[in-house]
Amino acid sequence: MSQAHEQQPEKKHDWHKLPEEVFRFMEARTASNSAAFLIPTLKEIAATSETGSFKMLDVGAGAGSMTCEFAQIVAPHGGHVTGVDVNPVILSRAAVVAERWGVTGNISFEQADAYKLPYEDGAFDVVHCHQVLVHNKNPWDLLTEMLRVTKPGGVCAAREGDLDTEVMWPPLPGMLKFHHDLEVKLIVGRGGSATAGRELLSWALKTGVKRDQIKTSFSTWSYTEPEDRKLWASGMVDVALGANLAEKHVSYGISIESREEMRRAWKEWVERDDAVLAQLIGEVIIRKE
Amino acid sequence: MSQAHEQQPEKKHDWHKLPEEVFRFMEARTASNSAAFLIPTLKEIAATSETGSFKMLDVGAGAGSMTCEFAQIVAPHGGHVTGVDVNPVILSRAAVVAERWGVTGNISFEQADAYKLPYEDGAFDVVHCHQVLVHNKNPWDLLTEMLRVTKPGGVCAAREGDLDTEVMWPPLPGMLKFHHDLEVKLIVGRGGSATAGRELLSWALKTGVKRDQIKTSFSTWSYTEPEDRKLWASGMVDVALGANLAEKHVSYGISIESREEMRRAWKEWVERDDAVLAQLIGEVIIRKE
Repeated sequence: MSQAHEQQPEKKHDWHKLPEEVFRFMEARTASNSAAFLIPTLKEIAATSETGSFKMLDVGAGAGSMTCEFAQIVAPHGGHVTGVDVNPVILSRAAVVAERWGVTGNISFEQADAYKLPYEDGAFDVVHCHQVLVHNKNPWDLLTEMLRVTKPGGVCAAREGDLDTEVMWPPLPGMLKFHHDLEVKLIVGRGGSATAGRELLSWALKTGVKRDQIKTSFSTWSYTEPEDRKLWASGMVDVALGANLAEKHVSYGISIESREEMRRAWKEWVERDDAVLAQLIGEVIIRKE
Repeated sequence: MSQAHEQQPEKKHDWHKLPEEVFRFMEARTASNSAAFLIPTLKEIAATSETGSFKMLDVGAGAGSMTCEFAQIVAPHGGHVTGVDVNPVILSRAAVVAERWGVTGNISFEQADAYKLPYEDGAFDVVHCHQVLVHNKNPWDLLTEMLRVTKPGGVCAAREGDLDTEVMWPPLPGMLKFHHDLEVKLIVGRGGSATAGRELLSWALKTGVKRDQIKTSFSTWSYTEPEDRKLWASGMVDVALGANLAEKHVSYGISIESREEMRRAWKEWVERDDAVLAQLIGEVIIRKE
């Protein structure tokens, strides 16, 4: 979730200074709600591996909530999951999350640059990332590195948003500004992509694998229910539009007034009965030959 | 699928003149692939109804393939499904489809205008439509009529595309023209909506129901696998860009050259390994009080 190339230091936030409630929305991501496309394959590979031998790598693990559920899933087969992230601060958070999930015996977290993973070729049965490629230039190089550490016969999987498809209703001007002037511009400005979901299959093919080694699909990311919307909007107001980012946003051409309009729009959106937010997400599972 | 208001006669195609293979893509829609959000609720209501009493209405049934699977699902509980469509020609096709599905005892098809359904108030336990509201002006009036014939305690459900979120990769100019100049312009020009998916919840609320009576969700419609893409593209080339529509398209400002470019693009897209097509779809299930 926060995996970034080491040449992009501006992406590192000072997470440990954020209030506890901010982490709630980061930790709302689980394997069930954000990697459902991979779970059957993961279970199958873990179940057919020799007991105690299965290894998974979760790249860009962030606060580790998805990593924890992966570890729960493979635990009955003696499998182990390693979560890596480029940000050392968020990794200390991941240990807390793992304790809360009650997952300790078969999980570990390490700092690592996703472009230069500190593992041998073929070290893992399953290698996964979620919303990582979308933030990076030349994402196929990152996939190539993930495939390098994937065991022949194993799989490498990614799930990436297609930000240009993000829909918001009602179309509050402050919400649309937030989407176009902040979210899209920041991601694209840092070398990321607003069309990652639809391009994901083409990125996988650029690693040199053949089309019949790839299973591709689409799913959605959405906020429709009052409690979920409240959680997401508070994250947008407190984190994405936090006071600590005001100066940076102004330097990107987003005025203090625009920021205030965006904050008001998110707060209005939470109160509306007709409010929804959704985005198309692309998925690939690459089987390594 | 082809349900239209009676004041929009230009939407009626002369389906019975189309070659057999054209129907293949129309009939590829099933309850499993296009109404998965409703199936658990449908099963629950059918299973808890008095045996032989359950009744469902499928509005805009088109060629009837979804209606047939609904009928299969409710058959063990003695339920009955009625499919209605405004187009009498397509209804004769539905009978053929039902025979192919082996569903005959608990299904019937009738011609009806969705804005004036020829049924008593509360006649059905479940009332459903798929890709119908998206084509109509004032879709909340259509939902109001569907709710009128829904039994108190029953549900009224709709699933509608959000055409503005349709993504195509690779971005072949002819495909993008097809999307913007033909698909979107024709639907919007006829009074339909290119943002139905995101607006669906707001339309449901306009019928006067309360937010807590509505369950809303998003899913996707996509073509990623070679055989599926071939089927869809042949439908676009043979039906949407069929010779019989050339004159009409020219009157809408789409030149013969543009149509040829679109046809070539669809044919190129079928051959590409990196080709995908996807769209965000909105869903609502309204429980009637």
